Amino acid sequence: MNENDVLSRLAEIVESRKQADPKDSYVASLYAKGLDKILKKVGEEAAETLIAAKNSDKAELVYEMADLWFHCLVLLAQKGLHPDDVLKELARREGLSGHVEKAGRSER
Amino acid sequence: MNENDVLSRLAEIVESRKQADPKDSYVASLYAKGLDKILKKVGEEAAETLIAAKNSDKAELVYEMADLWFHCLVLLAQKGLHPDDVLKELARREGLSGHVEKAGRSER
Amino acid sequence: MNENDVLSRLAEIVESRKQADPKDSYVASLYAKGLDKILKKVGEEAAETLIAAKNSDKAELVYEMADLWFHCLVLLAQKGLHPDDVLKELARREGLSGHVEKAGRSER
Amino acid sequence: MNENDVLSRLAEIVESRKQADPKDSYVASLYAKGLDKILKKVGEEAAETLIAAKNSDKAELVYEMADLWFHCLVLLAQKGLHPDDVLKELARREGLSGHVEKAGRSER
Repeated sequence: MNENDVLSRLAEIVESRKQADPKDSYVASLYAKGLDKILKKVGEEAAETLIAAKNSDKAELVYEMADLWFHCLVLLAQKGLHPDDVLKELARREGLSGHVEKAGRSER
Repeated sequence: MNENDVLSRLAEIVESRKQADPKDSYVASLYAKGLDKILKKVGEEAAETLIAAKNSDKAELVYEMADLWFHCLVLLAQKGLHPDDVLKELARREGLSGHVEKAGRSER
Repeated sequence: MNENDVLSRLAEIVESRKQADPKDSYVASLYAKGLDKILKKVGEEAAETLIAAKNSDKAELVYEMADLWFHCLVLLAQKGLHPDDVLKELARREGLSGHVEKAGRSER
Repeated sequence: MNENDVLSRLAEIVESRKQADPKDSYVASLYAKGLDKILKKVGEEAAETLIAAKNSDKAELVYEMADLWFHCLVLLAQKGLHPDDVLKELARREGLSGHVEKAGRSER
């Protein structure tokens, strides 16, 4: 697997855990608690990303940004969206979109 | 270009704009203002992502999360990091890392 | 005027500016733009408070926290609430509420 | 006690708990964990304030803003500051400062 497929692979994992028992899966427990709990985590991890960046600790920054992105993936799945939707928007802005071949996987 | 390459391609673009004239490039203007300005934008876009999610507007959420991820890429570049560093951390956590073949491009 | 009355006095000022021309008043311009704009400012100022605290610059921290509290007052007024509602909740938690004599000024 | 004294009274309580056993006091446990833990809580409570405001639930908003202000008081105390420092800055901006009689209690 190419590293670039990580977001898509993670999105599949997150999607599959939607159905899991909240006792067995952190992701399932977030879904069980609902949107506000997921958003609280996104806000929390954004704050920790800022703090890590000010600490000038690269490993801490990578760790906290991974937390932030992971909870973004959980939020996207809760809303029926896919990370490709965000990547396509980014590609569109930068004029890369003409080269993007894979179709988006969720309706907006 | 595969959509999955968007983050790497954007990282290159961001990196190349580090040297641009702040008058000509938004990214260059962020770098000229320094880390705190970049972090302020990350915090701002995280707040807008939360607001968009509460608005139940998928297009708005995709737009704001694209803003959030873009400023995360700017932050990574400012710290000499690459989005692959974050993706590798995510892969490691999910047990995907054994399959990740591309080496990280930045030292920690 | 006692310094302790600052929040109530500011709440009055904010309330009075609700009716002002958005071209003449920052507060009126926030109300004209609506709740999401006010919330975006609260999120932004919270991020700047974190950054200031990490900068170990007391004057910067006081400045940014003043910005945060001010936009909290704007948010309260937008919702028909008063800072006393928040102070009463804080007093209640700390067992100070038996001594609080002034009645809340807004219905919940 | 006037409700307006709540912030000063809370600042005293927070200050007094700095010395408490972290096992007995939430505030002491925050100080024991250090600045980053306090900032993480400020960021978290700011996110919850945004979410509550979008939920259009006045009681929830008051509750979360009380959490936010409380952790702001903990942050001020950690930095050797007092809520009056913030109130004085707010009064200064609004042209109320000529009337503020109480001197600030902490050096900047």
